[in-house]
Amino acid sequence: MRVLAMLDGTLVDPEQPWIRVDDLGLLRGDGVFETVLVVDGQPRELGPHLDRLARSAELMDLPVPDRSAWEHCVEAVLGAWRGDAEMALRLIYTRGVEGGDGTPTGYAFGFPIADKVLRNRATGVAAVTLDRGFHPDVVARAPWLLLGAKTLSYAVNMAALRHAEARGAQEAIFLAADGSVLEGPTSTVVVADGNTLRTPPPSLGILPGTTQAALFRAAEKAGWSTKTEPLRLADLLSADGLYLASSVRKVTRVHTLDGTPLPDVPALHTELSALYESEY
Amino acid sequence: MRVLAMLDGTLVDPEQPWIRVDDLGLLRGDGVFETVLVVDGQPRELGPHLDRLARSAELMDLPVPDRSAWEHCVEAVLGAWRGDAEMALRLIYTRGVEGGDGTPTGYAFGFPIADKVLRNRATGVAAVTLDRGFHPDVVARAPWLLLGAKTLSYAVNMAALRHAEARGAQEAIFLAADGSVLEGPTSTVVVADGNTLRTPPPSLGILPGTTQAALFRAAEKAGWSTKTEPLRLADLLSADGLYLASSVRKVTRVHTLDGTPLPDVPALHTELSALYESEY
Repeated sequence: MRVLAMLDGTLVDPEQPWIRVDDLGLLRGDGVFETVLVVDGQPRELGPHLDRLARSAELMDLPVPDRSAWEHCVEAVLGAWRGDAEMALRLIYTRGVEGGDGTPTGYAFGFPIADKVLRNRATGVAAVTLDRGFHPDVVARAPWLLLGAKTLSYAVNMAALRHAEARGAQEAIFLAADGSVLEGPTSTVVVADGNTLRTPPPSLGILPGTTQAALFRAAEKAGWSTKTEPLRLADLLSADGLYLASSVRKVTRVHTLDGTPLPDVPALHTELSALYESEY
Repeated sequence: MRVLAMLDGTLVDPEQPWIRVDDLGLLRGDGVFETVLVVDGQPRELGPHLDRLARSAELMDLPVPDRSAWEHCVEAVLGAWRGDAEMALRLIYTRGVEGGDGTPTGYAFGFPIADKVLRNRATGVAAVTLDRGFHPDVVARAPWLLLGAKTLSYAVNMAALRHAEARGAQEAIFLAADGSVLEGPTSTVVVADGNTLRTPPPSLGILPGTTQAALFRAAEKAGWSTKTEPLRLADLLSADGLYLASSVRKVTRVHTLDGTPLPDVPALHTELSALYESEY
């Protein structure tokens, strides 16, 4: 089951081609995206996802996304979905055809959550740390590096995941050149210690996490402390719990980091998962 | 005039959509490309371009490109072209549809050289230097960064060109975190001093230039010295001539760098252009 709606709200056959060969999203990875989790027909964090899409577009000098058009486009997919209770919904927004009139290409595409993702949610994952190559001090002075924008230029993120898999892991966690913990290729790092949750700050050139934000919101209501602050590798290794948060992953536990087994506190993962779910 | 051939050699209408919305080239910038200059029906440096496509594919763990299929695909475009004497020919090769059977997507797409490129060839360009964010020592130990692969994930390269334009320039030259000169977003840096041409080494995490290689080959035959060695910004500012080489640019002169006018030796540009053309 797959459902595709173009940005004008038209439902079309996802097995057919709809994109020109000279779309800049394809030729240059020149576009932005979001992946939204939909459960029982309800998109989770749609507002924050659309906010982040707009922020990414701004960092890329793309036309401001038409929020109302996106909302209608999402509704079209939700209305046509006849698949599982959970759906992944990708929103794609590109600079359009090269040399064209500047009309962006946009569509929303719903598809099932991959079995691998569901399995990892249940069993946890092994992760490896990988050097992301840049020093955090470059983020503010080199906006052309698009650090913190969720662009279609994700070849490095995909290569990092392949590299992790080649080392027997399922996930990667990027470190900056100064050792700062950054993010996963498609997830946000969260550590739990006692009654405190921590995640690295977007100022390091990483994405603000929508799922992490929902978890922190719920945790704060339940009396947890939350901190957005720089983390080091040692913080990950010593934490009561290390997690990767993303729309489709929810709050997936990391059980092994760079080959080292991490503390196993099943009640903690259960509690954090329940906190996250309590938001919906 | 635009001509499109899919990798099976079929000529199809470039104004129609041929790509699915879930092609990984689009979703993730997960693919590689080349741009070949064709003059009077003859593709320049097609062999080196196909070599580099294969090398990029290898760095990305893509299936080995079928060289014979690519040659036939290129022939199909060349045979159908009825446009100007010069054509830009893009070769695109992606990981194919997400969750599919692993069949890559490939096509060759011929289109006219942009007026801006032709103008820049004639008048030269102003360029600005931009920090590329990584230290060269990361290249060898972090292959997941794909430095030196010509991937479809070119959003940063495009953002750098927009940034240059916002500063009144037409081109950018990337510098590494240690100040090493790297490359342009879609070109190779060449400096001329006396009877010596120099370009930075691919070991810095940059693409080996096909046009630069052709120029160096011709220059060596004509008695020039050529060096592939690290360069600093001071080397660019003090050179007799600074050039950006690429298939469609040929050997375009940089007349201004970071707002500083560079030495103007018209005879030198004429000589280098003639050397390059002498290879064809």
